[in-house]
Amino acid sequence: MTGRLHLNAFLMDNGHHEAAWRLPESDPHAATDVAHWQHLARVAERGKLDSLFLADSPVVWGGSIARRPAAALEPTLLLTALAGATRHIGLIATASTTYNEPFNLARRFASLDHISGGRAGWNIVTTAGLDAARNFNLTALPAHRDRYARAAEFVEVSLKLWDSWDDEAVLADKTAGVWGDDARLHPASHTGDFYRVAGPLNVSRSPQGRPLLVQAGSSESGKDFAARYAEAVFTAQQTLADAQAFYRDLKGRAAALGRDPETVKILPGIVPAIGATEREALALEEELDRLIRPEYAKAQLAEHLRVSPEDLHLDRELPADLPDEDSIQGAKSRYTLIVTLARRERLTVRQLIGRLGGGRGHRTFAGTPEQVADAIQHWADNGAADGFNIMPPVLPRGLEDFVDHVVPILQRRGLFRTDYEGTTLREHYGLPRPAPARGLAAAR
Amino acid sequence: MTGRLHLNAFLMDNGHHEAAWRLPESDPHAATDVAHWQHLARVAERGKLDSLFLADSPVVWGGSIARRPAAALEPTLLLTALAGATRHIGLIATASTTYNEPFNLARRFASLDHISGGRAGWNIVTTAGLDAARNFNLTALPAHRDRYARAAEFVEVSLKLWDSWDDEAVLADKTAGVWGDDARLHPASHTGDFYRVAGPLNVSRSPQGRPLLVQAGSSESGKDFAARYAEAVFTAQQTLADAQAFYRDLKGRAAALGRDPETVKILPGIVPAIGATEREALALEEELDRLIRPEYAKAQLAEHLRVSPEDLHLDRELPADLPDEDSIQGAKSRYTLIVTLARRERLTVRQLIGRLGGGRGHRTFAGTPEQVADAIQHWADNGAADGFNIMPPVLPRGLEDFVDHVVPILQRRGLFRTDYEGTTLREHYGLPRPAPARGLAAAR
Repeated sequence: MTGRLHLNAFLMDNGHHEAAWRLPESDPHAATDVAHWQHLARVAERGKLDSLFLADSPVVWGGSIARRPAAALEPTLLLTALAGATRHIGLIATASTTYNEPFNLARRFASLDHISGGRAGWNIVTTAGLDAARNFNLTALPAHRDRYARAAEFVEVSLKLWDSWDDEAVLADKTAGVWGDDARLHPASHTGDFYRVAGPLNVSRSPQGRPLLVQAGSSESGKDFAARYAEAVFTAQQTLADAQAFYRDLKGRAAALGRDPETVKILPGIVPAIGATEREALALEEELDRLIRPEYAKAQLAEHLRVSPEDLHLDRELPADLPDEDSIQGAKSRYTLIVTLARRERLTVRQLIGRLGGGRGHRTFAGTPEQVADAIQHWADNGAADGFNIMPPVLPRGLEDFVDHVVPILQRRGLFRTDYEGTTLREHYGLPRPAPARGLAAAR
Repeated sequence: MTGRLHLNAFLMDNGHHEAAWRLPESDPHAATDVAHWQHLARVAERGKLDSLFLADSPVVWGGSIARRPAAALEPTLLLTALAGATRHIGLIATASTTYNEPFNLARRFASLDHISGGRAGWNIVTTAGLDAARNFNLTALPAHRDRYARAAEFVEVSLKLWDSWDDEAVLADKTAGVWGDDARLHPASHTGDFYRVAGPLNVSRSPQGRPLLVQAGSSESGKDFAARYAEAVFTAQQTLADAQAFYRDLKGRAAALGRDPETVKILPGIVPAIGATEREALALEEELDRLIRPEYAKAQLAEHLRVSPEDLHLDRELPADLPDEDSIQGAKSRYTLIVTLARRERLTVRQLIGRLGGGRGHRTFAGTPEQVADAIQHWADNGAADGFNIMPPVLPRGLEDFVDHVVPILQRRGLFRTDYEGTTLREHYGLPRPAPARGLAAAR
């Protein structure tokens, strides 16, 4: 049975709650232990989830490793290791268009798609933050708008490279001594504002043709970009109304570009603290919030808001005079989300820190498996989601609880598959394998 | 028992002979089949080899896929997949200093070292060829000398990044809520002629501290570079005298820089066609040479020599008026090696094609296991090699034959280990784990 929901496991070292590593059960060295990640991948596959996903930024955040695990294995390599530990689940890696070369990155995703038998996905990010820029020869952050223009051209080049070998290009004609047909090779021949790439790629066309394209930006540029390129969209939404508005908006933008809105799957994030009883779930949430060190969290919040830590007081609301949104060149949508959440619910800085520490702006939720399933179904039934980005606050426990207790409820309700029916990530998401595009206007 | 030889398996799709894919036993789709590579890795590990190695160039060579398998999975990903299929053998990937960013590449090697439990090695190349340049926004090839200057700075930045976390930086102090000690984090703070990289790396110090550094350039710049940075050197030498001269030269250059020459292991390549009898070995070599399509090989040779294919005649020697070596900006040492080999042995173009088709300038050798072992020992006993880069002409058969029939002879003679004694690649090569360097002149 198929079901109509799509579920992605968003994995992060000891879990999404910033204090998860401090729980007695947590291994604080898990971030660099491939066995930890292999276990998580196998649990997610036991739950028949569509995919698992790794976020990424090429930086030690804020230059500090004090607050939480700060070692991050490179995602395309880590997913390659997880491909060997699993057989079905999709593997989505974040990678930056600002700090990679299209030839190298397109090749890594084509390689991951071959190695995993068609399970590769790319979460396309433009990478905010001066910290990152300073690791790549820059002294200033490229402007928000420029990063998206570069990202669009980066994706266009990548599409040309993935399509540079026809599916039938490898003849393997031993008798004639002809391995490949040069007539079925199509150089990228790309010359644009940011890139000149001759091509062809040196990897044959992969099982999926190209990786699943994922995007998570929520700024205006981000939504336009997603509407044009994304096949799955991860998004942070706090309320049903906001999620419905985002869903309508993005599907509308895709339709306006001539795309079938069904081919853009929208997955809001949810951080479910799961307990056998509601009281148990709330106790977990409270224990985690108690383990946050507020001075670290306040410093991080100040950095997000582009203010000095001294301007924030733990038991007061945010100051009234914050920087104007338009002046933010970094993670613009993250900024807006934090400020909106704080103002709407009139949260003190301490309360805001608890909410953000749990899910960095994603929807946190404490409840029984039945309540979590209800929350998921409620949004899915009301035009707010095609599926969910599951962000367990504690790993591996939170993923095990979700897979063993929430997934069976969704399956009984006919909302989620009881087994994999396809072999590729695209098949899990109900998306077709693209034919190679040919010609200049070919990308879409 | 340890033995004093080091053996590396240089793997290449269906084997090093360009026509290997045409043999009845060969799977012409092996290049993109991870199961093929996993089998090879397990065979090499069964033979207790120090390491396996993947060459690389970010290009479809000559823009043609006709002649031989031309799909190449990205090496750091493929080795990550092989890490999961093996437990002991070292994993050496080629990567270019001209077409990567230091932060990204240093991070991938640190990640591979974590994932493999300390088995990562980096073969540092500067990447010759206009084809490659044209995949990375360039319209001309950077000059030979500039590529090496950039490579040296790239390695310096990488060393700073690998050393940016002390071994003790991760405190994992759950009670105090302090994951890492910021005082044990050392930004790279690099500002040079080619790179500005702030650091620190976002990966903790890996089991080996840093990957084993390997180099294979044979030009003057290449040898200087190897003497400064390399811990293992792959080289193509046709005669004992040439190999001895190279060995003395490189060890001398390393000593002149204040390094212990014992910490630079020199491994000439050998392409052994192995048969139960000498006749069987020669028959294999002849069968392979017969399967070369001379018009393809002539076109490739012409490209190497920077002449037109019409200037080459299959049954004549090379033309007298070839371009001057100093005018070659690409693979300078490859050019010199080909011309020297052809002139010394007065080979016709057809004969030269056979020799190059078998090993691209490396020493080809047909014989029984005993003869191959003798050839290896002869060079090792006479100051020409610390070990060998084994390049089977046909895979997997040539590696299986080497492991099952040649390795036991070397073991009986006390020349090669009968089991792994260490767990890391550095331990296999008898090299120490480096302490983090501190300060400006710290790299060496």
